[in-house]
Amino acid sequence: MSKRPHPVPGFRLAGAANGIKADGALDTALIVADQPASLAAVFTQNLVCAAPVLLSREHAASGRAQAVLINSGNANACTGEAGMAAARQSAERLAELVACPVDQVQVASTGVIGVPLPIDRLLDGLPGAVAALGGDQASAEAFGDAICTTDRFPKGASTVVDGFAISVFAKGAGMIAPNMATMLAYAITDAPVAPRDLDAIWRRVVDRSFNAVMVDGDTSTNDTALALAGGTGEPLAGEALDRFEAALLEASQRAAVQLVEDGEGARCVVELRVSGAPDDEAADRIARTIALSPLCKTAFFGADPNWGRIVAAAGRSGVVFEPNETSLRLATDEASIELFRAGQPLPFAKPEAEAMMRGPRFAFALRIGDGDGEATVWTCDLGHNYVTLNAEYTT
Amino acid sequence: MSKRPHPVPGFRLAGAANGIKADGALDTALIVADQPASLAAVFTQNLVCAAPVLLSREHAASGRAQAVLINSGNANACTGEAGMAAARQSAERLAELVACPVDQVQVASTGVIGVPLPIDRLLDGLPGAVAALGGDQASAEAFGDAICTTDRFPKGASTVVDGFAISVFAKGAGMIAPNMATMLAYAITDAPVAPRDLDAIWRRVVDRSFNAVMVDGDTSTNDTALALAGGTGEPLAGEALDRFEAALLEASQRAAVQLVEDGEGARCVVELRVSGAPDDEAADRIARTIALSPLCKTAFFGADPNWGRIVAAAGRSGVVFEPNETSLRLATDEASIELFRAGQPLPFAKPEAEAMMRGPRFAFALRIGDGDGEATVWTCDLGHNYVTLNAEYTT
Repeated sequence: MSKRPHPVPGFRLAGAANGIKADGALDTALIVADQPASLAAVFTQNLVCAAPVLLSREHAASGRAQAVLINSGNANACTGEAGMAAARQSAERLAELVACPVDQVQVASTGVIGVPLPIDRLLDGLPGAVAALGGDQASAEAFGDAICTTDRFPKGASTVVDGFAISVFAKGAGMIAPNMATMLAYAITDAPVAPRDLDAIWRRVVDRSFNAVMVDGDTSTNDTALALAGGTGEPLAGEALDRFEAALLEASQRAAVQLVEDGEGARCVVELRVSGAPDDEAADRIARTIALSPLCKTAFFGADPNWGRIVAAAGRSGVVFEPNETSLRLATDEASIELFRAGQPLPFAKPEAEAMMRGPRFAFALRIGDGDGEATVWTCDLGHNYVTLNAEYTT
Repeated sequence: MSKRPHPVPGFRLAGAANGIKADGALDTALIVADQPASLAAVFTQNLVCAAPVLLSREHAASGRAQAVLINSGNANACTGEAGMAAARQSAERLAELVACPVDQVQVASTGVIGVPLPIDRLLDGLPGAVAALGGDQASAEAFGDAICTTDRFPKGASTVVDGFAISVFAKGAGMIAPNMATMLAYAITDAPVAPRDLDAIWRRVVDRSFNAVMVDGDTSTNDTALALAGGTGEPLAGEALDRFEAALLEASQRAAVQLVEDGEGARCVVELRVSGAPDDEAADRIARTIALSPLCKTAFFGADPNWGRIVAAAGRSGVVFEPNETSLRLATDEASIELFRAGQPLPFAKPEAEAMMRGPRFAFALRIGDGDGEATVWTCDLGHNYVTLNAEYTT
């Protein structure tokens, strides 16, 4: 259960330093598969998106990829035609070096917005990065380090299902870092999965993992989540495919929650479970409204069991429910306290509730009726460190 | 242009202290019209709404009101059947005292949630409050004080149009105060306006004033905005009605911006103007997304001209526009600096921009194309005082 994902057979990884980060840290990360892998790709929904996102979206249409290049330290966003040319050049150069078609190269960038990408340094450094590719643990860790920007720790998770390995690498400080910190996630597996199945599975998995963690709702111009399945046997089907999806979801959720733990300035991770909704979408809408409410998030920071703010946030979510059939519970792994039932406040031991909320992780469970719809999202508190980090760092 | 609205002929106002606020401050406010006035009412859209909102919404169907009772210090929200009974009792008692039908009484409450309203104290105090009603400036000021809760100053604006007086009274610390501070607004005028016209006008005016100021997007369970037109002559029509609407809008916007100035913990008021959108609704959606973005609001607090955050917030608003036709300008009354044009960052004097943003009021003007749609909203920064006030005050 380490946060350091393991290598996966059939993939070589690398991290290198090419002077894109001013401090000389690792800033160039590579994934190269032994042969073309099935690819599933989810990109930022922000209309203003970076050059590498535009290019990778084009390339993803093939449903296959053999190589992925990520640079940290520069987002290559809001950089106009020159930025697009730089993204293309880097993809072309990597395709040459690893001998694959250019449309099987995925690129991503993360770092400052609006500053030209130092493309010469990146191109000059690529042969060295390719030479450093390896299938060992050290290479996997260098890859994990090279995709980080303001992260306090590298993130990820590994698991094994039916003998296949799955490793998920992620970066992001909760999408709240200076300069629109980017969320990047890369899942690699040696399981054989057909591109169409991988695409459907990855969209469901991302919705319930990387898209279910939220710090402030500010989506980056560069967010990218890729899944690469390199296995060459008969593609998984039926129950084996279901087990693969469950394992990929579990590992992705573990990696995703680390983004919230590392949310800049975050004191605690808060799990928000909504149930009894007419459908899952309605439950999700309520959970997200609470997760993004500054009033709720400052109460989390203050360890204040202020149920009124949570119920009121649900009330403005746009979902129709009956306040008189609503109940709310605060829970940790050790304890559970009901705060509100059938639309009425309950007497509860406030010092106990405050103590539960002073811990690093707790949950609120809101039940809004008798429907089958449910959703879980993870958020963090909003405290002084968030303000300091986002007000005092400048572009 | 005082923030202390003037009295209006045909209306008597009062503020009294009845022990609902623990510190003995004014907590009971009355408006009584000499005869039934045209009424327009806009209430919170929160599904979880307080007992007085439920009752007043019922009464507002008549399109007329003669008396308004507001108590501060207790929201009478999440108080179940007992809360509804208390709201009804207070309306019935006031109807008796001023000799009007009960459905011509509007009631509102603002203060803590989930605590039973001390209805006996309110009922005992009503005769004294009615006896204190007056048409003088002192009565108007007592009314303005009695509706306040965590407000640092009472809010409002007066104007005159075609010889008719308009006064707007408001309270609210930007909807961000502890316990879901409520926004209340009362416009009174001696202009003769038919209920149907007043209703249409008031909805447009509220959308562009009290609904166009935002601090954190957390709408209260108690928000209420009423307009009362007491004039008895021939109802205004045509251009006179248009002039009345323009005057009411101007006074309401002046009062509304005071809510943002008083946004708890706010350092500055930021005007967000969006133009060139396909329609006004699209422009409004972009302006509101920026106004509520924690990343943008912490940049405002830090006086950081971080245009990337503003453009990225617009990009995730859901409105489709062409980033390459987008421009952004920072402006104060004295100066204006273009930061971004046709999708590209412009070189600009950062110290000058920072100095502009260090002031108490500045504007960002975002143009996203050649459409006719435009919108203006007002927001404030998100700083340490917001966190302190909302994390450390508890229910």
